[in-house]
This record gives sequence, C-alpha cells and structure tokens, in this order.
Amino acid sequence: MSAQNKNDNYQLRQSKYSKSKKNSPKMIPNSAAPSYGGQKSRNSQGNRKVMKKRYNYKNYKPRVQKPSVKIAFLGGLNEIGKNITLIECENDIVIIDCGMAFPDGDMLGVDLVIPDFTYIEQNYEKVRGIILTHGHEDHIGGLPFLLSKVNVPIYGTPLTLGLVGNKLREHSLFNKTKMNTVNAGDTISLGCMKIKFIHVNHSIPDAVAFAIETPAGTIVHTGDFKIDCTPITGDMIDLSSFAQVGDKGVLALLAESTNAERPGYTPTERLVSDSFDNLFKSAENYRIIIATFASNVNRVQQIINCAEKYGRKIAFSGRSMVNYMDVAQKLGYLHVPDNILIDIDMLDKYMPQQVVLVTTGSQGEPMSALSRMAYSDHRKVMVGEGDFIIISANPIPGNEKTVGNVVDELLKKGCKVIYESMYEVHVSGHACQEELKIMQRLVKPKYFIPVHGEQKHLRKHAELAEFLGMERKNIFIGDIGSVIELNENYMKELAPVPAGKVFVDGLGVGDVGSIVLRDRKHLGQDGLIIIVASLDVYDGHVISGPDIVSRGFVYVRESEGLLDSVKKLSLDILEDCAKNNIHEWGIIKNMIKDEVSKLISQRTRRTPMILPILQEV
Amino acid sequence: MSAQNKNDNYQLRQSKYSKSKKNSPKMIPNSAAPSYGGQKSRNSQGNRKVMKKRYNYKNYKPRVQKPSVKIAFLGGLNEIGKNITLIECENDIVIIDCGMAFPDGDMLGVDLVIPDFTYIEQNYEKVRGIILTHGHEDHIGGLPFLLSKVNVPIYGTPLTLGLVGNKLREHSLFNKTKMNTVNAGDTISLGCMKIKFIHVNHSIPDAVAFAIETPAGTIVHTGDFKIDCTPITGDMIDLSSFAQVGDKGVLALLAESTNAERPGYTPTERLVSDSFDNLFKSAENYRIIIATFASNVNRVQQIINCAEKYGRKIAFSGRSMVNYMDVAQKLGYLHVPDNILIDIDMLDKYMPQQVVLVTTGSQGEPMSALSRMAYSDHRKVMVGEGDFIIISANPIPGNEKTVGNVVDELLKKGCKVIYESMYEVHVSGHACQEELKIMQRLVKPKYFIPVHGEQKHLRKHAELAEFLGMERKNIFIGDIGSVIELNENYMKELAPVPAGKVFVDGLGVGDVGSIVLRDRKHLGQDGLIIIVASLDVYDGHVISGPDIVSRGFVYVRESEGLLDSVKKLSLDILEDCAKNNIHEWGIIKNMIKDEVSKLISQRTRRTPMILPILQEV
Repeated sequence: MSAQNKNDNYQLRQSKYSKSKKNSPKMIPNSAAPSYGGQKSRNSQGNRKVMKKRYNYKNYKPRVQKPSVKIAFLGGLNEIGKNITLIECENDIVIIDCGMAFPDGDMLGVDLVIPDFTYIEQNYEKVRGIILTHGHEDHIGGLPFLLSKVNVPIYGTPLTLGLVGNKLREHSLFNKTKMNTVNAGDTISLGCMKIKFIHVNHSIPDAVAFAIETPAGTIVHTGDFKIDCTPITGDMIDLSSFAQVGDKGVLALLAESTNAERPGYTPTERLVSDSFDNLFKSAENYRIIIATFASNVNRVQQIINCAEKYGRKIAFSGRSMVNYMDVAQKLGYLHVPDNILIDIDMLDKYMPQQVVLVTTGSQGEPMSALSRMAYSDHRKVMVGEGDFIIISANPIPGNEKTVGNVVDELLKKGCKVIYESMYEVHVSGHACQEELKIMQRLVKPKYFIPVHGEQKHLRKHAELAEFLGMERKNIFIGDIGSVIELNENYMKELAPVPAGKVFVDGLGVGDVGSIVLRDRKHLGQDGLIIIVASLDVYDGHVISGPDIVSRGFVYVRESEGLLDSVKKLSLDILEDCAKNNIHEWGIIKNMIKDEVSKLISQRTRRTPMILPILQEV
Repeated sequence: MSAQNKNDNYQLRQSKYSKSKKNSPKMIPNSAAPSYGGQKSRNSQGNRKVMKKRYNYKNYKPRVQKPSVKIAFLGGLNEIGKNITLIECENDIVIIDCGMAFPDGDMLGVDLVIPDFTYIEQNYEKVRGIILTHGHEDHIGGLPFLLSKVNVPIYGTPLTLGLVGNKLREHSLFNKTKMNTVNAGDTISLGCMKIKFIHVNHSIPDAVAFAIETPAGTIVHTGDFKIDCTPITGDMIDLSSFAQVGDKGVLALLAESTNAERPGYTPTERLVSDSFDNLFKSAENYRIIIATFASNVNRVQQIINCAEKYGRKIAFSGRSMVNYMDVAQKLGYLHVPDNILIDIDMLDKYMPQQVVLVTTGSQGEPMSALSRMAYSDHRKVMVGEGDFIIISANPIPGNEKTVGNVVDELLKKGCKVIYESMYEVHVSGHACQEELKIMQRLVKPKYFIPVHGEQKHLRKHAELAEFLGMERKNIFIGDIGSVIELNENYMKELAPVPAGKVFVDGLGVGDVGSIVLRDRKHLGQDGLIIIVASLDVYDGHVISGPDIVSRGFVYVRESEGLLDSVKKLSLDILEDCAKNNIHEWGIIKNMIKDEVSKLISQRTRRTPMILPILQEV
C-alpha cells in the first residue's frame, strides 16, 4: 500500500496508507497551493453541505471562490468498453480505470481496441495514480498499453490487482509497476484529491465506486454496480457510504448507464442458485457443462456449491477460466471444498453424472472452449447425447448470432441445452432504472454525467435524472475526448483533448488505421486481381506477362475466359502506352485499373481491388 | 388462372380453374394410374378419418395400401430463409415457395443466398408447379434463379404474384413465366395433388397455407402465419378450414417455427394502431419519420390512417418501400385517401408537423434510407432536432448492433427516437407457442415436421408437439437435403438429395465457393504481401525486383524497415535457389511463403496472405 503525501493539506486519514514517498517515484510535488481554504457551507444548494475538515476551523467561512475540477473522458462514452476517465484538479490528475474494448465487425483483423493515451502522455508529470473500480477487461484491459508508455502507480482492491498482476506479467511490466492494494472502505490521497473506495455489487467480486474529494468539491464515480441485497459472497453494496457522501454534498455524479434502458431492478445473483439447483436435479443422469464468464467468480462459486451438494467433481475448461479461478482461489474469493476439483484430463475417468465442467465460450467466441466442443474441435471434450449444457450468460449485443449458432450445433449433436433467460440461469451485473434512481437520490449531485454506454444508454440515463427533478443544464452527455470544467457555480465544456480508438493487431499497436481497414474491407468483400508485367526499360514494351493472379474474386478454373479477357485488355493498354510513348507508370497503372474495373464490373457486377504491378527489365 | 387437368381423378372443384392445358405447356401427362382407390377409413388412428371422395364410394373400403408421399427440403431447415419444400407423389412434384436468404457475416461479399436447385433440374419433367405462400423475400426471392433454369408455372394469391411479377420483370423472365392467380379458399389440382389455399394472418397481406391432398394422404403446410383475431385488413386466419381439413384426417403437418421459443401469443397488429395514435399525438410539433419493413402493407396502412387523422401528408422513402406500396395500392391492398401522398421531393414544402415520412432501414442496413439519414448521407432528407423517428420493427437476430448504431447516430443528431419494444410499435408476424399449439390441435396430424427455423426453433417446436401428446417417433427434424417418405403406416428418411447454399455475388450465381470465401476472409482479416520478381530465363538469377507490395497489412510508410527485411529475405532465397539450381517455381514460391510468413509472424504476430509472383524474362 502506498499514498501520496506531497500536499500537506491532504493528509492521510488512515495511518496504514502513510508510507513514504518512494512508492510514487515519478511524482512531482504539487507546488500550486490551493487558492482557498477552510470550510465552505453550501447552504444555497439546499440540502448539500460540504464540510472541509482539513483545518477543522468549523466556524470559519471565508467567501473564497473554490477552484474548479476538470473531467476528461478518453473512453467509455458512446461506446461499450475501454472505460477511462481523468479527474484533474489544480496540478493533479487521477485516472479512473483503463479498459479495452472488443473490435466491432468492421474493424477487420483487429484483436482489441484501446484508448488514445496522448493526453496522458502530454500530462504525465501531473498524473498521481490510476485507481481501478474492478477487474473486468473493459476497465483494466488497456493498462499494459498505458503502462508501457508511462509508469504510474496503480490502486485497486485485492482481486482487481491480482488480475492486473497476471496481465502485467504477460507484458513483462509486473516488476516495474507499483501496485497498491486498497480495501473497500479505505481512503487514499493522491495529490490534492482524497479518494474513498466504496464497496459495490457487480458480476465480479471486490468491485468499488469512488468518492473523490477535490478542492472543487466531491466527485462520485460509481464504476459498474448493481444493488444486490443478498449477494453470494461479501456484503451488499455500501449504500450507507453513498448516503454519507451525498449528505455532505456532491459536486458531480458519474454513474454507469449499461442497463439504463431496462426498467425495474436487476435480480439478485442468488436467484441463479435456485435455477442451478433445479437444473442439477433434472440433469441427474447427464454430464453437466456450464458456460459462463470467466470473471464471474460468484457464478462459479454457486456452481461449485451445487456440485458439492450433488456429489459431482468440477473441472475448468478454457485458459481464462483456469486463470481467473486460480487467482480468485488464491486470494480467497473462491471457496473450493477439498478434493472436488479435477483436471480436465481426468474427466473421462468419471461417469457423466459425477462431473461438472465449467467452461468459457458463453458468447459463442469462435476459439472458445464451448465453440470448439460444439464444432467437434476440442482436443479433450467430446459432447453428445449424454450432455446437459447450461449457458449461464446473455449474449452481449452483437453476439446473438454466434451464440445461436453454437446452441444449434450443440442441439444437433443431441445435447440438452439451456440457453434462454426464462430459466434464470443468468442475471445482469448492472443496475437497472430503479437502482440508478436510488443511486441518484442518495448521492444528490449538483451535476450529473452519465457514463459507460452508447448514446442511447446515456440519453436514457439522463432522462431518468430529469425525471427525478434534475435540470437539463446540469446534465452533461459527452463523447470521448470531451472535457468538462466544473465548480459549484458552473459546468462548462472545454476544448476536447485527443481521444479515439487505437487498434491492437498482433504486436502492433496503432499501426492499423483507416487506410489499412479500408483495404481489408475491400479485399474481404470483393477480393483482388493482380496484373503483373515486366516492361522493357528502354521502350516500355512488354517483355514478360501480363500475368493475372486473383484471390477471393472468382473460382479461377471456372472463369478462365474472364481472366483471359483481363490479360488481353491489359496487354493492349501496355502496348498502346509503349507505342504512344506514355512511360509514366502512375498513368499506365491507372489506365489498367480503370479499364479492367470497367470490364469486370460489366461482366460480373463486382468490384475487386485491381492491383497492377510493373517491373522494369 | 390455370390448372392441371391431366389426371382425371383430380378434376377441379371450382370451375374458374378449369381452363385448358395450354397454361401448363411443360407438363407431361401423369401416366401412372394410382395403385389404390376409393376410400380408406383410418379408424385405427383413432379420431383421424380420411374420406377420399374421388369416387364417392362412401361405403367401399378396400384394404389396398395407399401409395406414399415424399417430402424433400431444399431450404428452410436449420436456417432462417430460403424456404423451399418439395412434395412428391407418384410422378408429380409440387414445389412450395422458393425463397432466398441473406448472407451471414462470414459470407463475405455475397449479395444473397439461394437454394441448390440440382434436384429440381434433375426431376424437371415431374414438376407440376410452384405454389407460393406469400410475397416475402425468404419465400419468393429465389424464384428468378430457379425460373432461369426451369420453366414452371407459378400459383399464388394476387399480392404475392404482383410482387413476383416485379421481380421477374427485373430478371426479364416475366413474359415467359406462367403466373396463375389463386385466391385464398380456392383449390387447384397439380398432377395427382389437390391443393387448397387457406387464408392466414401474417405481416404481409394475402398470405396462405396449403392443404395438399395427395393419394397418400393430406399434407398441411402452414407457410408463415399468426392468429390475429382483429387484423387491420382482411379476415382472421381461416381456422375453420384448418379444422375441416383436420377432421378429415391429415397425414403430416409442416408448420413454421420462427417464434417457437416464445411463450404465449403474438399480439394483434391492431395494438400498433393505438401506439401510433399516442405517438402522433405526442409528436405534434415534430416531423414524423417511421421506418418499417417495406412489405408490411398493413403497418403502412395504419400509418396512413394515423396521418389522415392528424392531417399529415405521407411520403415514401427507399426503393423497396416505393415498389411495394405501388403494387399494394394498385391491387387494392393499400387504401390511400386522395391527396395525402406526396413525393419525397415535396417534403420541404411542408411544415414538419404536416408530414410523415415512411422509410426502409428498420434493420439498420448500411445502404438503406434511414441509415443514410442517420449518417448524413441521404440526398433528400436531413434529420435533426425537429424529427420524431419511430423504428417500427424489431432487429432480426444478427442486426442488433447495426440497428443500435443507427439509433445512436440519430440520437446524437438530436432526433427523438422510439425504438424499444416497450412502446409497442411493432408486433411479430409469426405464431408464438400458444398459436402453434392451436394449429397443431386443429390439424391433428399423424406426423409432424417443424419447418422454417434454426435447430433450436425446430427442437422447441417438436417439444411443443410432444407436450401435446405426439409421440417422438412421429416427429421429424430434418436438415436441408433431407427427404422423408410418409404414408399412413410409416415415416422413414430416405437418402438425401443435393442441397446447400448457392451464393449470388453480382451477376455470378454459384461461382463464389468455399475457396474464394476462405481467401476473402484471410485477405479481410490480415491483408496481403505480394512479392514480385523477374528471373533470368536461363539461370534463374533475379533480373528485376523483388518488389514488395502490401495491402491491408500495415500502414506502409511506418513499416518500411519491415518491408525492406521482407525484400532482402526474398532476394536471398531467390539467389540461393539460382545458385543451387533450384528452378522449380512451386518450390521457390513455397520457400518464400514459408520464410516470409515466419519473419512477419515473429515481428508482428500477424499472418497476412503471402503471394510470391515470379516472371521469366
């Protein structure tokens, strides 16, 4: 654990964080003293009251203007994933989360998408730390890419840091990164900001929200959350802390919007227990295979509990499932009875009714364990009529079709498949409208900024706030790159900062851009025709070729006539050019491109990429 | 109208079909006399009784074995779309529908998918006609491709044939195709089969089911249907006819399975009226834009009714919308008050609150009118804060993401967008579980074959039938290519016939196959590197090149070092080969491919297509 003590005004409350400065080697002392001080009653805001206790001058109320705080969004607005938010006050920046996103269908060949870190690199000396809400990829997946550019200390709960640690080891960043464990309920100081970690419920344990006390006022960021009064492990969301913070006065609330379109409440995770119990009963003669998110430790805990009850052994399948369970078990978030875990290789040593296999692939990902089983491509598990398969997840928008295909394949193999929401084998990890309203009412912010969602989610969340009485002018719907300046008197949008989608493809980060994607799309849709010819260096006459090579265009053997026409046309153009003393290759290539395109379009109504390549001999 | 009178046993009941044979020029008289006759009681089957009335020998019950009927599925099983079913009895084949399907995401560059017609071509002389259930693309879209191979008469209801006619005109097939209009309630004879057209409700008017009386027994095919007790135009589904057919005894029921997973009932189309009414009221100061399926004539009728009520003019946008409404209006299926229709060009002459624009694009299709509006790419319509946009459709599985993107763009432009099912601006056109059960109970078939759906839909539909008491052995879940032989004593699966997915890409039908698609996928995901060199024809030394051209791989300007390495490596390999007298081009190319792949993979972890092209000079 570590802390930033540079600014004396923000002494640490809890001594366990009062370590030395050596934990934050890159920090530059904050020389700008706050231009205000003491306590400022905000009675003009009605029930809001900010009691600055730093000087403990309880009765001293100078009319000094507070500074303002800037919030910059580098990700997570108008998109699902790559959540990252910067809180900037005086000379300090704190980064909340650093996630990745999965590529859309039109980002061909892209492995993952990360935020543009330019603004962070430009302001490196101000960054006091990265605070993490929880260990999902859309909140931590961008970290290795950021940390390979800037070395900034990380603050997170034990499970979150356990998962981050694995990730950093893969990128050889583990040893040089300062990771500081903070437990929910604790408060740390980073520069001029004091950050309280508040326990929330979510689909991964150890998730937190933040109440960030800045000289300008308190900012609350919910992270991802739901209100689960009966969670499987750990406590219910710490509503009391939200209430306390709200009572003291909150400048701005940043709340997640994932389920803002859904009325009502998200059911408790415990609901799934009953469903599993019933399904285990009805599947007593089958081998049970359950696909779920590798990170959903509580879901797996319920499966383990059920397996124990019904005397089944458990095996894990899929690399990420094995990794997550390993970390969760080591850190005590997964409680596994003795002798219940078996290796997947041992599966065949047991009768079907003696085992449960917990696997990845609930989103129908082509390379996942469940997909491989469905398409008979798994090295260790063959599925068939003796299998009872539960998909304990809902398809993320965009995955409906692939999940459906996997279900169809499993059904064709004779498996029993439970995949519908009607069986209640899955609940969301995100707050629905009623929960969002409770959060809004407890925190009672002056300004509201919906985060984590596409435009429709952000709008719907804003409408909810309006429904609760907030004025529209106090709500900000931003975009990535948006910067907002806030204080108790105004909220205004500043000039945007660099932000965008940086594509990771293999080892390359950012080297695949719009031109490469455009070409990939063209090649993927229509294929290509290459026309190669060697020309006489002196007179431009064709010495060899033109040879026609095509890929992804037509089945060549059945289209010889067409390709012969292309060859003849290209030869004619080349010879015409030679005769007419046209030796500018750019012109010759364009003529070939245009004429061949016309011919192909006429004969096939298709538009393959035409690629003339000339060589001089 | 026309009919087949070849088989005297199957005289037409209704004189209006008793035209001459000249309407079926390709028909070959059915010389095989039925090997059975008269009436056969099926008391052994309990409540089923087939009363063959051909001879009217009411009391004559010979124990002659009835012939069997074959049903072949060329499409519509384990897939959504390209529905086509063949009923074959004695020497006659009747084809039910001939649809197309939209390509899956992995069918890169494919425009549409049609069935494999090999089996029909092989049995051309037996085909007596194509009967059409309704005018949706997944039921008629494959017709032009089939009719360009075999000339077969078509039988359909007026609207269906109106839409087919437009399609055939585009393919210059209109004049040579015999189209025979049949009204719901009528019966026609085709070979040994007598086909009753039974009115059903669906999301397009003039939809029918078929009761096909064959010498082997009656086959009922529901087509697409729902039970709507209060449809917008026309009557409720003709349940009475289904009941009558069921009471007489039905050998097999083929029923659609689209909504077999959904419990309960599909609401009436009339529900949408109330929603529209409310929305028109609340949008009184806005221009209203409604996106829906071009074929949903009843939906558009409701919009017209609302527009009339609220004093708004109507314009249509999108080519297919204009076409469908044109046909529907001409045939009397769309009732448009005088002076309410305006051209889209006239839109700007009216105040926003005076118009409604009805458009295509409810599925977020990239080139559709609504998408163009959302992305500011529509030539005639600019949308913004004054627009109230209703998406009156649900996303078809697989389209969720594109629809969501369009909604987000419209919201960003400041439009009001109504897109959720909670507003009840859309109801399905397909029967849910309770309706499917009613159909099952009315028709009371001996055998049941769920059709139109993926495996999960077919299975769920089969489970419903089992729930109603049908034995599993009497249910058949098939695949495309499946052939089933049925009679009153048995149902057995025969050897499959050719079936598959034939890809239409531009003018090419079937010339894009798995190799072309594999290459497209590879090119689209990873791009390509071309290595071109001219070699000395005598000693194999490099005379020109190697030149490196890449597309869709990396941004070339930032990767010169890498491409230089590829060039150097290729040159080394070529010169090594020349030195070592390796002149076999296949071997040289493979060496280059392997080594360059290795280099690229090491340096980038990517796998572009490597394409060495050698020329001899």
